[in-house]
Amino acid sequence: MPAADTATLLIHCPDRPGLVHDVTGFISSHQGNIIDLQQHIDPAENAFFMRLEWNLEKFTLEKEEIFARLQPMARRHEMQVRLHFASQRKRVALFVTKENHCLYDLLARHEAGELPVDIPLIVANHETLKPAAERFGIPFYHFPITKDNKAAQEAAQIELLKKERIDTVVLARYMQIISPAMIEAFPNQILNIHHSFLPAFVGAKPYHQAHVRGVKIIGATSHYVTADLDEGPIIHQDVMCVSHEDSVQDLVRLGRDLEKTVLAKALWWHVRDQVLVYQNKTVVFD
Amino acid sequence: MPAADTATLLIHCPDRPGLVHDVTGFISSHQGNIIDLQQHIDPAENAFFMRLEWNLEKFTLEKEEIFARLQPMARRHEMQVRLHFASQRKRVALFVTKENHCLYDLLARHEAGELPVDIPLIVANHETLKPAAERFGIPFYHFPITKDNKAAQEAAQIELLKKERIDTVVLARYMQIISPAMIEAFPNQILNIHHSFLPAFVGAKPYHQAHVRGVKIIGATSHYVTADLDEGPIIHQDVMCVSHEDSVQDLVRLGRDLEKTVLAKALWWHVRDQVLVYQNKTVVFD
Amino acid sequence: MPAADTATLLIHCPDRPGLVHDVTGFISSHQGNIIDLQQHIDPAENAFFMRLEWNLEKFTLEKEEIFARLQPMARRHEMQVRLHFASQRKRVALFVTKENHCLYDLLARHEAGELPVDIPLIVANHETLKPAAERFGIPFYHFPITKDNKAAQEAAQIELLKKERIDTVVLARYMQIISPAMIEAFPNQILNIHHSFLPAFVGAKPYHQAHVRGVKIIGATSHYVTADLDEGPIIHQDVMCVSHEDSVQDLVRLGRDLEKTVLAKALWWHVRDQVLVYQNKTVVFD
Amino acid sequence: MPAADTATLLIHCPDRPGLVHDVTGFISSHQGNIIDLQQHIDPAENAFFMRLEWNLEKFTLEKEEIFARLQPMARRHEMQVRLHFASQRKRVALFVTKENHCLYDLLARHEAGELPVDIPLIVANHETLKPAAERFGIPFYHFPITKDNKAAQEAAQIELLKKERIDTVVLARYMQIISPAMIEAFPNQILNIHHSFLPAFVGAKPYHQAHVRGVKIIGATSHYVTADLDEGPIIHQDVMCVSHEDSVQDLVRLGRDLEKTVLAKALWWHVRDQVLVYQNKTVVFD
Repeated sequence: MPAADTATLLIHCPDRPGLVHDVTGFISSHQGNIIDLQQHIDPAENAFFMRLEWNLEKFTLEKEEIFARLQPMARRHEMQVRLHFASQRKRVALFVTKENHCLYDLLARHEAGELPVDIPLIVANHETLKPAAERFGIPFYHFPITKDNKAAQEAAQIELLKKERIDTVVLARYMQIISPAMIEAFPNQILNIHHSFLPAFVGAKPYHQAHVRGVKIIGATSHYVTADLDEGPIIHQDVMCVSHEDSVQDLVRLGRDLEKTVLAKALWWHVRDQVLVYQNKTVVFD
Repeated sequence: MPAADTATLLIHCPDRPGLVHDVTGFISSHQGNIIDLQQHIDPAENAFFMRLEWNLEKFTLEKEEIFARLQPMARRHEMQVRLHFASQRKRVALFVTKENHCLYDLLARHEAGELPVDIPLIVANHETLKPAAERFGIPFYHFPITKDNKAAQEAAQIELLKKERIDTVVLARYMQIISPAMIEAFPNQILNIHHSFLPAFVGAKPYHQAHVRGVKIIGATSHYVTADLDEGPIIHQDVMCVSHEDSVQDLVRLGRDLEKTVLAKALWWHVRDQVLVYQNKTVVFD
Repeated sequence: MPAADTATLLIHCPDRPGLVHDVTGFISSHQGNIIDLQQHIDPAENAFFMRLEWNLEKFTLEKEEIFARLQPMARRHEMQVRLHFASQRKRVALFVTKENHCLYDLLARHEAGELPVDIPLIVANHETLKPAAERFGIPFYHFPITKDNKAAQEAAQIELLKKERIDTVVLARYMQIISPAMIEAFPNQILNIHHSFLPAFVGAKPYHQAHVRGVKIIGATSHYVTADLDEGPIIHQDVMCVSHEDSVQDLVRLGRDLEKTVLAKALWWHVRDQVLVYQNKTVVFD
Repeated sequence: MPAADTATLLIHCPDRPGLVHDVTGFISSHQGNIIDLQQHIDPAENAFFMRLEWNLEKFTLEKEEIFARLQPMARRHEMQVRLHFASQRKRVALFVTKENHCLYDLLARHEAGELPVDIPLIVANHETLKPAAERFGIPFYHFPITKDNKAAQEAAQIELLKKERIDTVVLARYMQIISPAMIEAFPNQILNIHHSFLPAFVGAKPYHQAHVRGVKIIGATSHYVTADLDEGPIIHQDVMCVSHEDSVQDLVRLGRDLEKTVLAKALWWHVRDQVLVYQNKTVVFD
């Protein structure tokens, strides 16, 4: 017996009395049963945030008409509204370079049925991980990138992604800076994993930087990619303890475990529509 | 300028459509503005849980009449309802024996204004910490306990607590088993800190047990006291890594840091009415 | 340029003055340069533990004669001595059932060159993961197990392991109890991953047990397998926070991340000869 | 029965064969029994680090002559040597401003016998915590600081510290920048607690910075004070998870628990002579 389909609303707007009552009234009046509701107010910004998930089994509106029917309320409260359905699995492209740990981790989760997404393709700027893609039967696209061809290659990548109706791009240790054209094409839909506890050690070789500074904890950060390198909204971070005994190579090795779990968790929240971006920060409804 | 008073509702009932809409309708209809709403459903139990906090500034009902006015809705939905006001600070009694760390930690938080409670008294079965109580100007009551006088002393303790209108009893490393009479007098209002990661190492000398077993992590657990020793609903737990180099004495020393922060956090949630007990488990709205 | 070969000594014996001086004298007198030395004393047991790793580049003894030449000193101090060479990669057999996460995690680490071992074979009691083994080109042996054939199948497994000169058996979510014959054949060489924070939730379905108890933290434990189920020496443990919102299925999903990293870390220490077993506990030299 | 006195050597020098054998030979030849020996090599720097603690009970040298007798070996190997005795308790001055949490935490540990130090005095630039000092019977010195009097007040502080034979200065949330004169007077003996995970959020108001950036984890860092603000050698760090729901005030409140435990742990290692500074980093022998 498959789980019944659900719909998820992500809302933010100026705070005012009666918002929850209004939105839940919309659901109730069409026989929807709320499964999960989380609401958050930022008093300093007078901002209201809500995630609401409801069961569509007995819902009296067709999926196609829900968004339109929400508009009067949305206009009344100046709401920004996103609507998702659990049955519409996100289509995710994985971008990789040479390191295999994030790639295998995501593919293994996908194979085990843990990640409710489709992965139609893997994009890489090196051929190193082509055998990994082939093992899992996922088309592998090689876009070697040089200074000269970078703009053209990215344009080709965007075309490919659009053709494959990709929703979400995951930079699974993709060692290239993403250019503005792609960022604009996928706003808040490109997830990166940075191998430091941001904002410490922005930029290149963060484990080397960490070793020089002598920190006792290293971290990894998953964030949405924006035009400012390593400055996008942070979705998830995690850390582990290290010591003076750990060389740079040890930090690199240990950090891989952080990178793969942090990226996977951020992606989990993203594909379940639990993340709302606001003022370069995230509200993660968990 | 003092913060405006707020009211908090804690509700649980069988799940059915429209619950959130009904409750928020009650608030809206009396001009309350919701500050925080968290709702949780346990599908396996078909149980609905909600915490709702609203601003009383423009609320059109008097505090005294709110609970009565909620009753028709509560009966309709078979709701169990708790109502609290931020302005009614809980009155907390601290129970101690000889160890000072939890006591000083709570008193320092209280003095810094971090804990929104009154602490009218400290109860102890030894006189060791009397100077600590005196330093902070809090009345100290010494109830030496033997096998013979235990029932009588506990009766006297209950009488004292009732006379001082105590809401919450905190066993801050109180090395006595609480008898059923007191548990019944303060249901889900007695917080204990157990010095292990429950349910591992129930009972006496958990650090010794941990050392014998050779665990690599130790923990502390704060729970409500019930008739079953160390079996009450868990409010909070935390852990730290240890190694073969740590003796039992090291575990005792290191564990104190866990004990005091875990107990303080559990108390923080308790006094802010963020904890709901259900089937010997807690729902912590955080 | 390959790293020079190193030798590692693991010693335990009754504590007495001069032990470190004696052992380091042996190394110095043959022109060995110590890379790492860790020593630990358990005063309660008057027990001495040491791990010493040295560079063999200029060492004046042949590898084959080192162990024999150590014997006089070992006898003098009643030492238990283990000697390993980094160049002798351990041969590891992975035992699996149906879940893929630990298997893929170890295979990906191996492919990336992170784990300095050979993996000559995978043993399974179901065929589910045969494709995974095939993708990585590792021979897969299927031993279906029933009550009736269990003893015979285990005997066949032991024979296979001996034939393939296996040093280390990793139960990577292998859902069968290992019988005494195999445990005796591989003393302190069989690593298991148990999906709880032992000694909490010994036995079957630990996540269900954890959910019923309402713990706020779940864990995973890697230990050597002994005749007492889930009672062997603990090598590594880790935990993560959970909440009332997590169903049993959530705990299972979240726990997989613990299981794979805890098992991989325990195996890392094991294959680098950093683990010494003593009185059903481990000394982990890290 | 008091524990026997022990001596601790902290050594660093260029790495070469035979160092451990030489040093342990010195101990053995005078009938010392080694309790703890940890040794670390940084291959990239060819640097050798060692901490060695031995029992003085049967040692045949007087304490006063040990250091001189070590010199020939120290010169031979270009060793930097520190020698400490457990019986010579460090004398610690606590510097505070207005916040009480680190102060009470350290005083409670001291009263419980956990911290093997003397605390002859508390220095403050405000009078807020004078009652706290008085409660614990510790002399409180008030040095109000303005731009104009800062140099003179620090000179007076140094004089006071010298007069009281202070070894270690602990900045327990002391909200003043320490000037070079004091840093030179107490090299690697002034511990600070910075309320961020350094090097993120250097300087003022780190919790505000963290809130603006939207990090999901906050931290605290204890380090030795050097001439570069927040750039000194890191001794210890710890972190905790936060979320979008946490206001700046929540971060401040939550962070206090990190600050007090991180500072206390760093001080614990410092007073037990477990910390060695090298190239603006620490080797912590734990």
